Amino acid sequence: MKKVGVSILGLGVVGGGTYRILTEQRDFYKRTQNVDLIVESVLEPDEAKLAALGVPAEKVAHNIAEVALDPDVNVVVECIGGIDEAKNYVLDALSAGKTVVTSNKELYAKYSHELERVAKHHNAGLFFEASCVGGVPIIRTLIDGLQSNEINSIIGIINGTTNFILTEMTEAGSSYEEALARAKELGYAEADPAADVEGLDAAYKLSILSSLAFHTKVPYTKVIREGITNISKEDIADGKALGYVLKLLAIGRRTPAGIEVRVHPAFVRKDHPLASVGGCNNAVFVHGNAVGDIMLLGRGAGALPTGSAIVSDILYAASHTDFRYSTFKNTASPDKDVNFLSDFGGAYYLRLTADDEPGVLAKIASIFGKYNISLVELLQRGCREPGKATIVLVTHETHELAVQNAVQKLRATGLVQVESVLRVAQ
Amino acid sequence: MKKVGVSILGLGVVGGGTYRILTEQRDFYKRTQNVDLIVESVLEPDEAKLAALGVPAEKVAHNIAEVALDPDVNVVVECIGGIDEAKNYVLDALSAGKTVVTSNKELYAKYSHELERVAKHHNAGLFFEASCVGGVPIIRTLIDGLQSNEINSIIGIINGTTNFILTEMTEAGSSYEEALARAKELGYAEADPAADVEGLDAAYKLSILSSLAFHTKVPYTKVIREGITNISKEDIADGKALGYVLKLLAIGRRTPAGIEVRVHPAFVRKDHPLASVGGCNNAVFVHGNAVGDIMLLGRGAGALPTGSAIVSDILYAASHTDFRYSTFKNTASPDKDVNFLSDFGGAYYLRLTADDEPGVLAKIASIFGKYNISLVELLQRGCREPGKATIVLVTHETHELAVQNAVQKLRATGLVQVESVLRVAQ
Repeated sequence: MKKVGVSILGLGVVGGGTYRILTEQRDFYKRTQNVDLIVESVLEPDEAKLAALGVPAEKVAHNIAEVALDPDVNVVVECIGGIDEAKNYVLDALSAGKTVVTSNKELYAKYSHELERVAKHHNAGLFFEASCVGGVPIIRTLIDGLQSNEINSIIGIINGTTNFILTEMTEAGSSYEEALARAKELGYAEADPAADVEGLDAAYKLSILSSLAFHTKVPYTKVIREGITNISKEDIADGKALGYVLKLLAIGRRTPAGIEVRVHPAFVRKDHPLASVGGCNNAVFVHGNAVGDIMLLGRGAGALPTGSAIVSDILYAASHTDFRYSTFKNTASPDKDVNFLSDFGGAYYLRLTADDEPGVLAKIASIFGKYNISLVELLQRGCREPGKATIVLVTHETHELAVQNAVQKLRATGLVQVESVLRVAQ
Repeated sequence: MKKVGVSILGLGVVGGGTYRILTEQRDFYKRTQNVDLIVESVLEPDEAKLAALGVPAEKVAHNIAEVALDPDVNVVVECIGGIDEAKNYVLDALSAGKTVVTSNKELYAKYSHELERVAKHHNAGLFFEASCVGGVPIIRTLIDGLQSNEINSIIGIINGTTNFILTEMTEAGSSYEEALARAKELGYAEADPAADVEGLDAAYKLSILSSLAFHTKVPYTKVIREGITNISKEDIADGKALGYVLKLLAIGRRTPAGIEVRVHPAFVRKDHPLASVGGCNNAVFVHGNAVGDIMLLGRGAGALPTGSAIVSDILYAASHTDFRYSTFKNTASPDKDVNFLSDFGGAYYLRLTADDEPGVLAKIASIFGKYNISLVELLQRGCREPGKATIVLVTHETHELAVQNAVQKLRATGLVQVESVLRVAQ
């Protein structure tokens, strides 16, 4: 039976889950995968974390050199997170010819080109299923399940924290602040939630998924990004009244004109399959030219789901004798001939506060008309501010730039405050 | 660039779709997968099919020997279906060291052990993603995405024909016969629909999926099987009134007591994710000990979705230098220590016709009581037959054998006709 030595860097939530799976399921893997996965070492300075998992003292490594030089270690699992230490450690491991399995979306989105170059050079494997959508095998699916397809689009809910917050706001009618507090209480949001709520985490993942799907490097800096920090109870309630649910969507599309990648809140109709993806669940729709629409759904985070992805990568590495790398030019910048689109089609929801006086509605309507924006729904209702009215409207399919221009013109009238502009997914 | 020669056996729906994908996407695969997939030959006696796809005369093979002896052919795609010819051709191809990719669920369910033995012996690959759930990469997911998990259950809608018929009955209120006629008209049901509507097709697929998931051969003959031919408009309507949708479910579970595998119609609550899987779509839920619930959804059949699975298998075979085989003892019979369960837990829906006279309801209730079956809902309503009443009831969680016994006792009273017994999925 093949023996594979594993070293885990970082025993946080994901590293801890991986340690548990590897130790508890060792016999299962021997029996079903014909491979003996042995945790050779753990690099974690926090004594409390080591004690909580009962890591024997002789398995504790003290520095990365010890891990990289250990001939019994074949696979290094990086669960440190962030860039500085993580990147250096991964490069050290790859340079020593160790296969690396990482859950670090920021590291992979920012430095996949550098890591892959070193991995190839040292004939080491580089696996990152756990970087995106927790236990859902979306990376494996894109590489080994749908690779016969030209992928036209990826649309998904790929951040559990924001999905929990929006679900909480929708179901309990909470404010953003209340829902965030609840998410922190339950351990679904970090003390500093910025990366999640501002859409950065989703942008890293979308960069990774889009690069694989569209066969060209899609830098995360190209992702048009809007978080959920400005979402109000009123938007959620308005949407609900109109039959919509608000989600933080990650959208990647490839058309003859170029690639569009964006992360932003968007309303989906309540009978859309993504509408019912609640709480910490994640889901991804992939549209391929042959297969049509495929959806994958599951837990997007957590110790065991993410550990499942890591250990599946380890088993994959253990059972293949050759390593493959990107099917695109994995460079820091995208291919020169790839156009990233900043204008894109779609419908919009707007909430306005306007002076409640004759002619204002006509003025608003004429501005939308000027930009060829036609409306599906418009409802005017009372407003807490005296002398003002709230106007909620949903447009037909139009374009991002047209809406931005119309909003600018509306503001310039001095008669209208634009409270919210949110996209509506078709 | 690696060149891979492909021969396609059978140009029916799936073979035709595969031919189209391979010829139309050849440049795409060169560019993105660094492999040149060349259709070297096609074995199809039907001139009309060859002409429809514009297969050049020099690519038409005349017998399997020609294919098996062709040194330019690396991968043989079997899309003939059935057993006789298909099995011999596949064995000939494997014996010549050709990798085989098949969409043939009947062949794979019945003879995987034999095919695999020959494949191993000749160091040939054997791939069968297309045998289950069309373009949805469920096989790859079980082998290479969730292999770190102990899989506890698989529950899915894995036959498109029956799902179309049941959706039609639910949405249009059609009878079984009307819905079947419509399915034939649209090409979703074959002239002889027996394999689909009697659940045999789903049983083959469940046998394949369960064997992979539970790491032991699960023969299709062990699948408890009930089709949809006896489903009436009344059952569908009753279910609807109670908040349920009827689906043909394939269920595989592994518990310490053994394995249960079954294909039968079952009601699911209308807010269950499987309830909204309509028409020809398929969906599979997998529960793993680490990952929790994962759902995969997509087109379960059709030329291009199934062709997508076949070509993905060809690309996988082309980019891996070693072939792997089952992670279980792939024999004709299951392991001796595996127990297949014929009793299983669950809730039930029953529709009875009873004499409309005092004491009958008490008699019915006492029989259920005797078998420890308690009821969630019971409704009595008028019946077309004079002097009779229709009684519809849904039980709490109970057991298959208890219900079978109770039904036998009900029948023995002579007062009650048992019109329908259907399972209710939790």
